[in-house]
Parts: sequence; structure tokens; C-alpha cells
Amino acid sequence: MAATLQNDRFLRALLREPVDRTPLWMMRQAGRYLPEYRATRAEAGSFMGLCTNPELACEVTMQPLRRYDMDAAILFSDILTIPDAMGLGLYFSEGEGPRFERPLTSDAEISALEPERCRDELRYVMDAVALIRSELNGKVPLIGFSGSPWTLATYMIEGGSSKDFAKTKALAFDNPASMHLLLEKLADAVAVYLTTQVEHGAQALQIFDTWGGALGHRDYEEFSLQYMRAVVERLPREADGRRVPIIVFTKGGGQWIERIADCGADAVGLDWTTDLAKARAQVGDRVALQGNMDPAMLHASPERIRREVASVLASFGHGTGHVFNLGHGITPGIDPACVAAMVDAVIELSPAYHSA
Amino acid sequence: MAATLQNDRFLRALLREPVDRTPLWMMRQAGRYLPEYRATRAEAGSFMGLCTNPELACEVTMQPLRRYDMDAAILFSDILTIPDAMGLGLYFSEGEGPRFERPLTSDAEISALEPERCRDELRYVMDAVALIRSELNGKVPLIGFSGSPWTLATYMIEGGSSKDFAKTKALAFDNPASMHLLLEKLADAVAVYLTTQVEHGAQALQIFDTWGGALGHRDYEEFSLQYMRAVVERLPREADGRRVPIIVFTKGGGQWIERIADCGADAVGLDWTTDLAKARAQVGDRVALQGNMDPAMLHASPERIRREVASVLASFGHGTGHVFNLGHGITPGIDPACVAAMVDAVIELSPAYHSA
Repeated sequence: MAATLQNDRFLRALLREPVDRTPLWMMRQAGRYLPEYRATRAEAGSFMGLCTNPELACEVTMQPLRRYDMDAAILFSDILTIPDAMGLGLYFSEGEGPRFERPLTSDAEISALEPERCRDELRYVMDAVALIRSELNGKVPLIGFSGSPWTLATYMIEGGSSKDFAKTKALAFDNPASMHLLLEKLADAVAVYLTTQVEHGAQALQIFDTWGGALGHRDYEEFSLQYMRAVVERLPREADGRRVPIIVFTKGGGQWIERIADCGADAVGLDWTTDLAKARAQVGDRVALQGNMDPAMLHASPERIRREVASVLASFGHGTGHVFNLGHGITPGIDPACVAAMVDAVIELSPAYHSA
Repeated sequence: MAATLQNDRFLRALLREPVDRTPLWMMRQAGRYLPEYRATRAEAGSFMGLCTNPELACEVTMQPLRRYDMDAAILFSDILTIPDAMGLGLYFSEGEGPRFERPLTSDAEISALEPERCRDELRYVMDAVALIRSELNGKVPLIGFSGSPWTLATYMIEGGSSKDFAKTKALAFDNPASMHLLLEKLADAVAVYLTTQVEHGAQALQIFDTWGGALGHRDYEEFSLQYMRAVVERLPREADGRRVPIIVFTKGGGQWIERIADCGADAVGLDWTTDLAKARAQVGDRVALQGNMDPAMLHASPERIRREVASVLASFGHGTGHVFNLGHGITPGIDPACVAAMVDAVIELSPAYHSA
């Protein structure tokens, strides 16, 4: 029997229900900017060692909550666990980010992919979800997550990060049948992966479409948005008698916000290039919005950070439907005291936007 | 006495005057995808050796015009000549792109920068402009260009390319006075640089704001757009009795197109994430639009490229005010035959959009 949730303002804001103040969490809040994270990672030996060890993954998930009054925890994992489970061989090389030992190079390799392998291979993720949920003991809700089908596809085809996604786009443009087969398989895998996370205790879900913004405005619908919609349609929307809100975040998707707002998700994540006030006017009461302070602002002084928080809050304005967050993940070099300045500012300044 | 211009459809479209078909050119059209470019670069010994040798710079500028019916030539140079002239020591390291030997690290270094050094130090650029203009002999107009103040500042502070512009943004957020001093100096330098290019024969100008799109929606106005506006205000708008159109291109600036359209330029460049039809409706008759095929489309088959050209042309629709281009520079691995497919498609398909 799950512990009673003591702080539900994150879930409430995502469903545009009244809250006492704007909830906040931070993308990559369990991360390298924290010395205790670096210590645990050293103990794990490697990044994947950390991801695949439920106890250590639980430990780093809890770390930011001990320092800051975050309104949600997010599963510590990587967006590339699904392709790894499909046999591509994920590894991390210093300075280069994630890489795959066996990137996809042919139609035959795409046809041979088995989405159902994710169920067994990713048990370590589900063990971490269950352990974190238990460890949270109702303090705040737990967010589960996955990469979007398109974002996963880019890494699987390029073999790692890319500047221009030449191979992925060449496949999409010249061999769309094969690309759509890959994206369908990934949508299957993502839907199963997120559903299983909910079954193990995730109380909200976020789909990270990190590279959707690299697509042209027509191609975004065809290769990214339609597959996120397919995933959202197949997700459980309730657990423990409570709605499980879904957040879709396309970095660089500000121009397409109205289309994203119609994909079936409860909330849309925004990066810092988008004007929250304008976005709110565009989406109306269809979805909540999450974001969107420039992560680079955390390099500034606490006073400057406080002014920026004030500006982001004012931009969204009065009423519920806003989850404060960065516009992308926090970067490794940030001073934890600067995060504290941001958190304090949200807690102190946001109640004024929720008074009756 | 300058030769009479035989093909002015590029200049006419930028001023929204009637044309027989949509004009086209391609960002980085003189570039590594051409074997003859690679041969000339090998002859020059290095990229900067190519930029600083007016004869070789002229040769590579002319190369794409011998293959394709481009409606404009663009000066072969680099966007970082200005900081190099200011003493930062530009060099190119394999795989890392442009780097500076002496990036800016203090307020004192910013105060000591001398924009007027550009006048003498960049004579090689002006020699190239004059030589190219003479060599063109009126075939098509010559585009001069510069990086935007903000874009130049990012390289000068980071010392090269950057993923998150941490140092530049830290300066902008925490020490705005110093950042504004730098941007004012760069606006001075860019205005003088572009003015001198016009005096030596440039017939249109483009400001490349490659990294403006990394700024937040408020910061974009403060740190990039206002300085491009300051540059535009100080540029000569006529040469040889003809208007010198100015194009401003902020990559990733699609959300701010209405503000950009008010900066005083004649045309706005768009990357492939922006819907041309929507953009046209937003800017009305204030400016022309340039763009915006995804450069990655050139990895596709000639048939697919032709369909995409048709789609871009249809998106802008009937009438003048469109210059066909890629949404960013062509990449090195492209087959020149694919460029030919794009050029042929524009020439064959666009007259239908300009019939009476």
C-alpha cells in the first residue's frame, strides 16, 4: 500500500488545479553539479553502472531533494536505455557523450529490432522506480520518463550525438518506410516502457524530445509528433486512483506549441527561447506549461537569478497551470548555491500568483 | 565604371519588386562539397590562407557560379575576420572548427579592443570584394556579409564554438555593462566593415546571426537584435544609384520573426523549422523572406529534393518577396549533383508563382 502523497502541487498544477504556489523541479536535478552525485558516480565506477544499480540510482534521485524543496523527484536513468535493451550497446566516451557500439546501418537491422526485449532487459529501471517510490514515502511525486521515438532514432542511426543528423534525415527523406517502421517499433517500446514505469510507481511521465527541434516544420509532425501522440494514446492515465499527467518536451519546439498542445499530453515543456505569456495565450486551457529559465542563468549571481525567476513567474502570470523548471537540463559546472537561489525565489515569489 | 548588372532578380525579390522566377543562392555555396574548392583550398595551404588571398578567394567565389545558375555570388570569407583583426588570433583546428588564441577574459581586454583596426587589417577582404565584383562583370550581384555582434562576441569569449555559451551568457547576465561595451564596439566594427564592402563593390549585405537563437526571448532583443538594428541604421542603402538590400538571418529565430522584420533590414532569412506561409502572413509586406530548405535534404535523391523544392515554393506562394535558399549552410558531404537537382527545380518550378 503506497504512502499518502504529502505534496501534490506538482500533479495539481499539471492538471491546472489550484495550488498555493508554483511547483518546481529541475531537469537533470540529480546530476554532476552536486558533489554527492559525483561521489556516488565514482562509487558506481561508470555512468551506466549508476543507471543499472537500483540502490545507487535511488540514492542519486534522492540527493537533490535533501538539499532543495523540489516538488517532484525524477527517476535517475538515461534516455537511451531502450536502444541499449534492443542490443545496440550503449557506452559513454569521455567528452563525446553517449555512443552506440552497433548503430543501425540497414533496413534488415531495423526489421530485426525487438521492442519486447525492453520488458526483460529494463527490469533494472523498474526496480529503481519501485525503490525510489518507496524511499520517497509520499514526500513528493515521482516522474518517470523516456526519450521520444524520434530522439531515440537519431542516436540509434548516428551512433551518438550529431550536429546535423545527416544519416537520420537521409533515411527519413529517402527511405521513409524504413524510418516509419523504426519509429513504430520505438513508439511500441516507449509505450510499454512508460506503462511499466507507472505500474512500478511513477506518478507522472515526461517524454524528452530532445532533437525534435532539428526537424523542419512539416517533418516534425511526420517523424516526431505523430509518434509521441501514438505513445500518449497508449499510456495509462490513472494509477492509485489518481490521474498520471504526461508532459511532452520538444527542445526547440516553440514554433509548434499549438500542435504539441493537441497531442493528448497534459502539459508542454518549453525551452527558454519561448515567451511563456505568448505560449499561454496560444494554448489557452488545453494544457499546462513547464519551464523555462535559461539553464545558463545559473552561472549568474543569486541576485540576478532571483530577478530572472521573478521575470519567468510574471511572464506566465496569475493562476495555476505552470510548473517552474529550467528550459533544459542543468549543466555540470553550476554552483549548488545558485540552484538554492532559484528554488528560494520560486518559493518566495510565486505564492503571489496563486492568491485568490 | 562598373559593368551593367545582367541578372538582378535577386536584388528585385529582396525589395519585393516583380521577378520572372524565384531567385536562388545557397549559404556556403563556395565550399567543401565542391571538388574544385577542395583543390583550391589545398593550394592555399589552409582555410585562412584561402580567405586572405584575394585571387584564391575570388576563384572559390566564382566556382559555384560555373556549375549552377545561382542568382547571386557571395564573398568568400569567414565570419570571424573582425575579431581576428582585433588581435584575437583566429585559427582553425581539425574537427573543432574556429578557435581564438587569445579569447577575451577580462573587462580590461574588452576596453582595449580597437574596432578601427578592422579598417587596415581587413584590406585583404576589400581586395577580394573588388576583385570578385570585377570578375563577375555584371553576371549576378555580389553579396557582402558579416557575423552579427552577438555571434562574434560568443566566439571571442568562448574562444571557439560552444554548446551552451556559458561564459558569454555569464558575462551578459552578471556584467551587462561590459557585455554591452563589447557589443557596441562590435556593432561599430561590423558597420564599418560592411560599409567598406559596399564601397568596394558589394551590392547586397547579409548579417549572419548564427547564435542569436541560443538566447532567451527577452535576451535576444537586448544582446542581439538591438545591435543588428544599430548596424543596419548605419549602413549605406544605395550604391551605383541602386538600393543595397540588407538580409538579417538569425538561425533559430523563427519565434521572433515579427521583431526581426522591424529591425530595418529588407529581408529576413529563415531556417527550415519555420513555416514560410505563416512567416509571410506575419511579416506582410514589411520585408522579403529568404530560405528555407533543410540542408540535410541534399542528402536525399534528386526526385525527393525536387519535391521538397516544390513544397518550399508552394509554402511561400504566389508573388515576389522570396529568395530561395537553404535554411543554413550546405554541409561538406553533399554530392554536387544533388545541388544541381535543387537549382534545376527552382528554375523550372518557380516561374508559375510569378505569372501575372
